[in-house]
Order: sequence, then C-alpha cells, then structure tokens
Amino acid sequence: MTFDPKERFFNFIIHLQQEICACIEDVDGAEKFIEDAWQRPLGGGGWSRVLTNGEVFEKAGVNVSQVHGDLPDLLKGQVPAQSTSFYAAGISLVIHPKNPMIPTTHANFRYFQVTDSQGIILDQWFGGGMDLTPYYLFEEDARHFHKTLKTECDKHTRGFYEKFKLWCDDYFYNSHRKEYRGIGGIFFDHIKPDQELSGERLESYIYGIANAFLPAYLPIVKKRLALSYSSDNKVWQEIRRGRYVEFNLLHDRGTSFGLKTGGRIESIFMSLPPTVRWEYNHTPKEGSPEWETLEVLKKPKEWL
Amino acid sequence: MTFDPKERFFNFIIHLQQEICACIEDVDGAEKFIEDAWQRPLGGGGWSRVLTNGEVFEKAGVNVSQVHGDLPDLLKGQVPAQSTSFYAAGISLVIHPKNPMIPTTHANFRYFQVTDSQGIILDQWFGGGMDLTPYYLFEEDARHFHKTLKTECDKHTRGFYEKFKLWCDDYFYNSHRKEYRGIGGIFFDHIKPDQELSGERLESYIYGIANAFLPAYLPIVKKRLALSYSSDNKVWQEIRRGRYVEFNLLHDRGTSFGLKTGGRIESIFMSLPPTVRWEYNHTPKEGSPEWETLEVLKKPKEWL
Repeated sequence: MTFDPKERFFNFIIHLQQEICACIEDVDGAEKFIEDAWQRPLGGGGWSRVLTNGEVFEKAGVNVSQVHGDLPDLLKGQVPAQSTSFYAAGISLVIHPKNPMIPTTHANFRYFQVTDSQGIILDQWFGGGMDLTPYYLFEEDARHFHKTLKTECDKHTRGFYEKFKLWCDDYFYNSHRKEYRGIGGIFFDHIKPDQELSGERLESYIYGIANAFLPAYLPIVKKRLALSYSSDNKVWQEIRRGRYVEFNLLHDRGTSFGLKTGGRIESIFMSLPPTVRWEYNHTPKEGSPEWETLEVLKKPKEWL
Repeated sequence: MTFDPKERFFNFIIHLQQEICACIEDVDGAEKFIEDAWQRPLGGGGWSRVLTNGEVFEKAGVNVSQVHGDLPDLLKGQVPAQSTSFYAAGISLVIHPKNPMIPTTHANFRYFQVTDSQGIILDQWFGGGMDLTPYYLFEEDARHFHKTLKTECDKHTRGFYEKFKLWCDDYFYNSHRKEYRGIGGIFFDHIKPDQELSGERLESYIYGIANAFLPAYLPIVKKRLALSYSSDNKVWQEIRRGRYVEFNLLHDRGTSFGLKTGGRIESIFMSLPPTVRWEYNHTPKEGSPEWETLEVLKKPKEWL
C-alpha cells in the first residue's frame, strides 16, 4: 500500500487540538487549558489538555496521542498474521458544560496502521465520530448538530451520514439501562481505503468531518449559555452524567482498549464528568422536561 | 447431599437485614429506610432497602434477594453437567457515610445451589465477606475492624481469617490504578462443605461472620461521627468515591454477574455513592492526610 497518511494526519490533529482549545477558551472567557505531555513506556505518547471550572465549561478535555510499537496481543488475530508493529494516532475530546441546558459532547478521530518487520503497511483504517448528550432537549439543537454532520458527509460520499448515524445510535447504547447515551451523531470504525473509496478521498472525508465539529457544537453552546437554571436542573444533569460514567466504564471499547493496552489513566478518564450523582431509583415526573429527555433517549430518532 | 440450608439461610438474611437497618436508623437518628420489593421475571425477587440523605449516612443500601430458575448460560461449564436449575440467596449492603472521617463499608453474604431435574442438589457453596474503605485513615479503626473479623473467624476454623484477608486484598484491587479499594477485610467464594468442614459448621461460620458486621463497623461510625470536616475533606471523599465507582463498574464480578443475568439495575447500583467527582490528575500533597491514605492503599497491610 502506498497510501500512508500518518504524518499528515498527525499534523492535522495537532492543529485541530489547537483550534478547538482556542475556540473553547474564547467561549469560556474565564479559564484556560493546561497541557500535560505524557510518554507511553512502550512507545509514543500524547498531549492532554484540560480546562476545568470555567465560566461555561466545567470540564473540557482535548487529548492528542500518537503511540506505536510491537503489536499488542489484544490485536493479534484482528490484523494480518505477518503484522509485527502498530501505529495509532488520534484526537479525542469530551466537553462537560456547567449549564445543564448545554449538552455534553464527545468527538474522536483516529488513524490506525499495522506493519510487518520490513515496515510495509499491511492494514490501515480510520475511525471516529462525534455525538451529543443533552440533559434538557432542544430539538432544534439536535437538528442543527445532525444537519451539520449530514451536510459534511454528503460532500464526500452519499450514504455515509445515514450509515454512520445508525452506527452511532447502536454504539452509544447503555444496554443495562435500555437507554441511549444521547441523541447520537455519527460513529464509524475500521473504515479502510478500497476500490470505491481511495485513501485520499477517505482522508479528506476524515478532515472534513473533524473540521465540522466546531460548527456542529459551538452554535448550540452560544445559544444556551445564558439560559438560567435551578439547582434541581443541576441535580438532573449530575444524575445523567452518572449514565455517562456507566457507559464509559461498562461499554466503551475505546476506554477498555486504553486500559488494557496501558494507556495513561488520567488521559483516558479525562472524559469522566466532574461532579456526578447516583440517586436510588430516580424517576422524573411524567410530562416534565426531564421525562421528555428520557423518552427521547429510549429510542433513536431521525432528526432530519 | 442431604445438607440443604436454603430456608435457614434465607430466614437468617431476612432477620439480619431487619437488624442492620434498625441499627443504622438508630445511629442516624434522622432518616428511615424505604423498602422496594421487586420480582425477577425469570423467578424470585428481592427487597431493597435504602436510606438517603440522613444525618450520618448519605446513602445506605441493604438488599436481600432470593432468585431461582433455569440455570443461566453464564454458569454452564462451572457446575456439574446434569445441573438444570439454580437457587441463590444473599444479603448485600453498602454504606456511604456523609462525614469523610467515617469509612464506607460493604458486606455481602450469599448461598448458591444447583440442582438436577429431580431437584437433587448437585453443588452448593457460600460466598461473602466485608471490607472497609476509609477516606482518612485512623489505624485503630482498621485494627478494630480486622480484629473483630479475626476473632470471629478463629472461633470457627483457624486460618480462615488469614486466607480470606488475602483473598479480600486480592479481590478489591483497582488494577488500572494500581491501588486497593480500601483497607480490606475478608472475602471468600465457592466455599463448599467437605470432609474437613461439614455443611453445619460452614453454615454456622457464615452466620457468625455475618453477625460480626455490626460490631465490626458501628463502633467506628460512633467514634468518628462528631468529628468536624472541611469542604476540602468532602471533595477528597468524592474523588475517592470515584475510585469506588471505577472498581464496581470495571472489576466487580458481582456487579457484572448481576447485569448479565438480568438483575434489577437500581438494586445493583444501590452500591454506587451518592455524589462523586472526577478531577483531572488530582494528586495530594506529600505528607498530607490524603497522601497518607493513598500510601496505605498502595500495598495491603497486616493490621493485627
């Protein structure tokens, strides 16, 4: 395979991290990101940026990593037999706003490559996506988010939005609660260049959709940040954040992969919400805004 | 096997639930337990009792369940091949005090039996234990807890405390953090009657150790409940409660078994703390009381 986007992709995510952090700081107006560089003992490392206790954002983490080395046992059997080494780079972010009227969001874009002992690429793929988790549902926000994603997807390959939207609903499912984590977005994994979709076109799709994160999310933040909220609204947000923790620790394959392959704990758990509650058998009153959110989380919806 | 403690054990745990709840209410002085009865669609059910927002206890859950039915797929291969049905009964509790100077505690006692199509018992065992999770360590409390357990264990079979103490340390380990959940206690599973230990002696050990829960824990609560604490102490408690959540969702086999076999979610998650925090890269100052607690959680200690 002559297609090798490793350096371009890494360059792209480093710049995207800069841009996202700058925009988040700008909207927040009070707090700045701090950065921790970390090294993976077996090869590579990353840069974790975290903003905490801001005016708008209670906790925002934007992590970039680039790791490589001997193929972990966990991956053997999933890649060509002659593979000896791997390379993975990605950007991953989770933003937990303070105001419960603003949804939490998560986005992730990653590139993966395995090589043989000569350094020849034997397999490679992209994965990623982004999704929205509202505590109080404003349907126009859900539509704006999905519309932005569909518009970008359609620029590249028709059908990607529809396929990746279903994949997202399917992935972010708290099966033990019979609830979806949020109102979805797009999710995809193991997307490989093939005869229909060249590496170059796939790469340009990834950049396009990753660049759509800010226009998909920021307008929602700006629209809702001045809304007032009560302490009861905050309690509801913290209870729902508990479901976010449940998903990430019980079901998320990314978290599980990170933990099993010796990723940096504090970077993996940057996604966990700052303050969380578990109240026994909390059940919103029928017809309340909380109940309405829950109803929507019971079954994925077509937003467009 | 003629030994069949099913009815006696169930009777015992129902009474123990009563007694524990009464003592907890008595110490709390403000709040009472509420009870929810629930049914398992495939057979059996339980009684969950929860006390929340008390004066002393922020959340205390004491759950009794008795479930039975066709052998779940999950257990096939672990029990004799002719087994067709199972019966399980247990009491499980987690107590989260408000004051960070009082440790959280967990206890669990269970009896398991599998039978063939004629109702003949093919295999049976007991499991259980109790452990302590301090936020601020008072060594005399840890010693009192362990001493109470050892004294009771030694009444029945010498060596049980030593063996079950190691098992407990081994079990309640947050491997991803390289930290123990707390300062241990005892833990045991699949303890079956055999030639050395008759069913009757084993049963009497279980009752003895379960009855030791209140004398092991309550004196610690009473000794620490009037201690003053700061909002920083509370933040530290909430951060450590995050580790409790991580253990229960990532590593606890009981939680995982409950979720996989269709247990009642709200009863399984009664163990989760009421308010929890995840702060990025929180690191206590060397020499601080928080740091001292962490040091002890890095390596199991002999308390006696």
